[in-house]
Amino acid sequence: MQRCDALARHSEEAGKLTRVFLSDQHRAAGDEVLSWMREAGMQARMDAIGNIVGRYEGEKAGLPCLLLGSHLDTVRDAGRYDGMLGVVTAIDCVQALSDSGRRLPFAIEVAGFGDEEGVRFGTTLLGSRAIAGSFDAAALQARDRDGTTLAQAMHQFGLEPGLIGSAAKTRNELLAYVELHIEQGPVLEFIGLAVGAVTAINGFSRLRASLKGTAGHAGTVPMALRRDALTAAAECVLAVEKIAGATPDLVGTVGRIDAAPGAINVIPGDVSFTLDIRAPDNAIRSGAVQDISAAIAAIAAKRKLELSMETLQEQQVAVCAGWLVAQIEAAILAEGHAVHRLPSGAGHDGMAMQGVTDIAMLFVRCREGISHNPAESITEADAASGAQVLARFIENFRPPSP
Amino acid sequence: MQRCDALARHSEEAGKLTRVFLSDQHRAAGDEVLSWMREAGMQARMDAIGNIVGRYEGEKAGLPCLLLGSHLDTVRDAGRYDGMLGVVTAIDCVQALSDSGRRLPFAIEVAGFGDEEGVRFGTTLLGSRAIAGSFDAAALQARDRDGTTLAQAMHQFGLEPGLIGSAAKTRNELLAYVELHIEQGPVLEFIGLAVGAVTAINGFSRLRASLKGTAGHAGTVPMALRRDALTAAAECVLAVEKIAGATPDLVGTVGRIDAAPGAINVIPGDVSFTLDIRAPDNAIRSGAVQDISAAIAAIAAKRKLELSMETLQEQQVAVCAGWLVAQIEAAILAEGHAVHRLPSGAGHDGMAMQGVTDIAMLFVRCREGISHNPAESITEADAASGAQVLARFIENFRPPSP
Repeated sequence: MQRCDALARHSEEAGKLTRVFLSDQHRAAGDEVLSWMREAGMQARMDAIGNIVGRYEGEKAGLPCLLLGSHLDTVRDAGRYDGMLGVVTAIDCVQALSDSGRRLPFAIEVAGFGDEEGVRFGTTLLGSRAIAGSFDAAALQARDRDGTTLAQAMHQFGLEPGLIGSAAKTRNELLAYVELHIEQGPVLEFIGLAVGAVTAINGFSRLRASLKGTAGHAGTVPMALRRDALTAAAECVLAVEKIAGATPDLVGTVGRIDAAPGAINVIPGDVSFTLDIRAPDNAIRSGAVQDISAAIAAIAAKRKLELSMETLQEQQVAVCAGWLVAQIEAAILAEGHAVHRLPSGAGHDGMAMQGVTDIAMLFVRCREGISHNPAESITEADAASGAQVLARFIENFRPPSP
Repeated sequence: MQRCDALARHSEEAGKLTRVFLSDQHRAAGDEVLSWMREAGMQARMDAIGNIVGRYEGEKAGLPCLLLGSHLDTVRDAGRYDGMLGVVTAIDCVQALSDSGRRLPFAIEVAGFGDEEGVRFGTTLLGSRAIAGSFDAAALQARDRDGTTLAQAMHQFGLEPGLIGSAAKTRNELLAYVELHIEQGPVLEFIGLAVGAVTAINGFSRLRASLKGTAGHAGTVPMALRRDALTAAAECVLAVEKIAGATPDLVGTVGRIDAAPGAINVIPGDVSFTLDIRAPDNAIRSGAVQDISAAIAAIAAKRKLELSMETLQEQQVAVCAGWLVAQIEAAILAEGHAVHRLPSGAGHDGMAMQGVTDIAMLFVRCREGISHNPAESITEADAASGAQVLARFIENFRPPSP
C-alpha cells in the first residue's frame, strides 16, 4: 500500500494522479521501481521502449522465466492501484524469496510496462507489445496532443526507436505471463471474496447504429403518424439489455446516445447510439452482435426507419491458459479462499503477451468496482491476500510438461 | 400565393425568410399589408404595439366586429405560409365583399399580429396579447440577443410602450376571433382533405425527468449488477409512447435525451430527458401527465434508480367555441368538402384572444406537415379552398343569440 502511495506522488498534476508514457513522471516512477527491484535482489533496467524490467535468476543463470508484472502508466485523474498494484506485489513476492535466499527452478522477471492505457499517443499496450515482439512501427508516428510523435518523445526520453526490437522476448525465454490486477468491477465485492481467478480477457465489439425517421412538431403529429427515431432507439437499448442479460458473462452497453434535433417540442428524426459488446468467448460475442444487429434491424423495419450500422472496433478474446488458471486456483484455495472464476471485462497487457506466451491473471477485490477514478480503493487485507496468493502460486509454479 | 411570395421577400437574410418583431422587415411587410387592406376598402393602421389592423365597416359604422387574422412575424429560416396565409386570405375575403359593395350586419377587422413566434424576445403572442388586453408589462424588459429591451426596440421603431393599452379591444367590440392557418401537421394530408375545423388549441405540459444510477465500466460490471440510467430511460420513452398512443388526440414526445458520462465504454449513470404532453382537453392531459409520471416512478423504483421530475411549463387548452366551430363546419360542407375536426397541436394567437372573445380556427392542408422550415408548402388549390370556406363562413356568420 505504501509503495502504491509512493508511486501516486509521481504525477503531472498536483492533487491528481496522471502519469503518461515517456514523461518526467514516467522516469521518476521508473527510477523508484528500479530501486525496489534491486533491493529485492533483481538485476533491473529500463528496456528499449521504457518498460522497467527486473530479473531474479533461478537455480542457475539463464533459465526461462515466469514473467510477472503490470503497467506503471495511468489514465488522467487516475486511481493508484490500477496497474501499480501488480508491479509492487510481484516485487514483494521476489523480495520474500530473496530475503530467504531461495532460488526456484526457473527465473522470475517483473515488468512495469511503460504504456498500457494509451493516454498519450492513443495507442494502447505499447510496452507489452514491445516485449511480446508485436510492436507496430507505424505507432512511432502517432502524435500526442502537443503534436510530438512517439519517435520524437522516445528520443527526448533518451531512447532509440530503432532499438525497440531488442525489448522483445522469445517464446523460449518465457514460461508464462501472470498479472495481478484490481478487478475494476463489482463482482468480487458482491460475492464477498478478496481474490478471483481470471478465465479470459474479454473480446469486444464496438458498433454505432444510426436511425433515421422524420423530425416533426411534438404537438401536430399524431402518435400513429410518427416516425420517431428515439422511441425506436429506446426499443433497441432494451433489446441490447435483454440479449446481453440472457447469457452469463456476456455484457452489452449503450453508452452514448445522440438525438437530433434535440428540442423539447420536436420529435427526434435522427438518433445514433453506440454499442459495446463483450464476452470471454469470441463465438458468444459474435453471436450476440448478430442477435443484437438483427433485433435492431427488425425494430427499424417495424417502425419504417432507415438504419445504418458500422463496426468501430473489434478485439478478440485473450483466453487464460487452463494449466495456469488451475495453478492460480490451487494457490487461492491453499491460501484459504473460495475459488471464483470470472472474465476480465477490461483490457490488460495479457492481450499483447498472449502472442508470445501463455497468460493468466489474478484479480483483487476493489471497492464498488470503481476504477479510472481517484476514488479507486482496495483494503490492505485484500492487497495482502493477493500478494500471498501470488507468492504461493510462484512457489508452486510448474511449467506444463512439454 | 403571390402575396405570400411578396411577404417572403421581407427578410433579414438573403435566400432565407427571417422576419422578427419590430425589425425593418416588420415595417416593410406591415406597409405592404396596409396597402392591401386599403385596396380592399379597409381603414388600416399600425396599432400601439406594431400590429397591422384593418377595419371594414358593416351596415353602419361602429358595429362590433368579427376579428380575422394571423401573424406576420416568422421563425428563423421560416416557411412563407405559417401566419401570413391567414392574413392575406382574410384580406382577400374582405376584398371580395368590397368589390361587390356588400356590407354585413357586423364589421370585419383583420389583424396581422406583429409577434406570435416570440423569436426576438423569447416571449410569444406579444401582438395578440396587446389586442386581448393581457399584455404583461414585465415583457418590456425582455432583451433580444443584442441586449436591446422590448421597450427600447419599440422606441426605436417609433412606438411608445406607455400606449400599449390603447391597442386593447373590449369584449363588447368583438363578436369572435377566427384564424385561418396551415395545419403544420400531417393529418389533413393523410386523410386527403384540403381543410379542417379546429376543435381546440391543445394545452401542453412540459417536464424534465432525471434518472440517477451508477456509472460503470462497460466491460467489468455484469448485467445483473448494473444500475444503468439509460436502459431505465429507454423504458420511460416507450411508456410515454404507449400511454399517449392509447388516447385519441393525446400526444407525448421525448424530444431531448442526455446520457452522461456519454462514452462508448461507460454505463450511463445519469440520464435526463424532456417530456412534452399535449391534448385538446385539460383533464385528459393532466391524467396523462399523472399516468406517465407514475410509470416513470415505477420504472425507477424497479431499477433502484433515483428519480427527480420537474414541471417546466404548463399551458391550458384554448377550446374553440362550439357555435363558431359549427358555423365553420357548415361553411366547409357548403363548399363541398367533408368535415374533419382536429385539434391544433401548435400554439396560435387564439390562445391570447380567447381571453377576450370566443375563438375558432380553420386549418389548410400543408405538405408532409412540414412547417417552421423553408420546405413548408401548400397547393394553390388548397389555398383557394381555404379562402372560399372562410368567405362562406364570413357571409353566413351570425353571432350567438345573447
